[in-house]
Amino acid sequence: MTRILYSLCGADGRTHYSPHVWKVIMALGLKGLDFELRPVTFKQISGIEDGSFTSVPVLNDNGHLECDSFRIAVHLDESYPEKAALFSCPAARASARFAECFCQSVLHPPLSVVTVLGMHSIMGPECQVHFRSVREKRFGKTLEEIAAGRDVEFVSFREKLEPLRSYLAIHPWFGGEEPQFSDCILFGTFQWAHVTVKATLFSEDDPVADWFGRCRDLCGELAGISVAA
Amino acid sequence: MTRILYSLCGADGRTHYSPHVWKVIMALGLKGLDFELRPVTFKQISGIEDGSFTSVPVLNDNGHLECDSFRIAVHLDESYPEKAALFSCPAARASARFAECFCQSVLHPPLSVVTVLGMHSIMGPECQVHFRSVREKRFGKTLEEIAAGRDVEFVSFREKLEPLRSYLAIHPWFGGEEPQFSDCILFGTFQWAHVTVKATLFSEDDPVADWFGRCRDLCGELAGISVAA
Repeated sequence: MTRILYSLCGADGRTHYSPHVWKVIMALGLKGLDFELRPVTFKQISGIEDGSFTSVPVLNDNGHLECDSFRIAVHLDESYPEKAALFSCPAARASARFAECFCQSVLHPPLSVVTVLGMHSIMGPECQVHFRSVREKRFGKTLEEIAAGRDVEFVSFREKLEPLRSYLAIHPWFGGEEPQFSDCILFGTFQWAHVTVKATLFSEDDPVADWFGRCRDLCGELAGISVAA
Repeated sequence: MTRILYSLCGADGRTHYSPHVWKVIMALGLKGLDFELRPVTFKQISGIEDGSFTSVPVLNDNGHLECDSFRIAVHLDESYPEKAALFSCPAARASARFAECFCQSVLHPPLSVVTVLGMHSIMGPECQVHFRSVREKRFGKTLEEIAAGRDVEFVSFREKLEPLRSYLAIHPWFGGEEPQFSDCILFGTFQWAHVTVKATLFSEDDPVADWFGRCRDLCGELAGISVAA
């Protein structure tokens, strides 16, 4: 068995901060598949495997190369149908796409502000230059100016969790009675913020906090990797 | 066959405005099940069938009584498994709950403001008194004061459609390649606003508008009922 997952990582070599890589880490955990997590910097992405990749995650699954977290999840379900399902039917696969769209358009905008300085601080010098350049171009202001809005955006982030809170009063996982890839997608978003922000993401009595803890337990125990924060 | 769906209706006897009833109308349409839509006022709800109900929708399906839109959907799938599935697996059922939570906590708050005067205007005098009392108590201000915020809330409503827009670039229905109950839930919310608000809900090029039109077509053709707006 050789299964290698390439992951953006802080200068300490163990703080993995890509939300999309975390989706795959949890998915591999759910399916009970071992893997080696291999850290890369932005610059090293173009050198992964056959050199055809421009982003992570990239998975080398016994010689089969796959990139993009959703494509990797589909590959894992097709390749290991005897393991726990990430998508139990086509409609469940579609609903995972809705979870992805919800994360990208509702949660990522405030978290991009909340995490911006924390992400920068854990990177090595080379990644810092690249990250600063990309973010400052996207926002049209300096990292420090972006970060000035973080308290407001943190309040906005917590408000936007309301549909998750009311949902978790009905089912324990976004996949229903068992976690599926929709859980991995949401988890990836929160785990990205969790490892890069010093503040506690959720209030103590927030049902999302309980669900998030259960997701992290799955990663820690099943995936067998050390989690930075 | 006797299948009767009880529905809150405007004074004209044909403007059905409950989002939860519309979920069931579309669900019956998807399953290709005929029914009679029977209008009731708020006061008449306590007189429906055996007198045990406090809200609509209520469905009398050949003598079997069921209330609550989600319970009705589950009943329809269990009773008519040979017809199109509203939930194609347990995870799809869970994802319909997430769509419900998204509607209730993200879309209903702005739409409650946007629709408030329109709802009031289509009701008969008895319903108007009840509706005004309930809404003014909930908001802590008069209907007219609530409605003063409608332009701001309408902008907010359109912003909140972003995850739906990005999703619809991937799949044609929220159930994936075919509509399921998650489509019915979202449709019910928009149809409630559509029949009570004079303004066009979506901008012309919004992919949500195209999907909404397809949902309405399903109700009109399959359910065989006249749609008010």
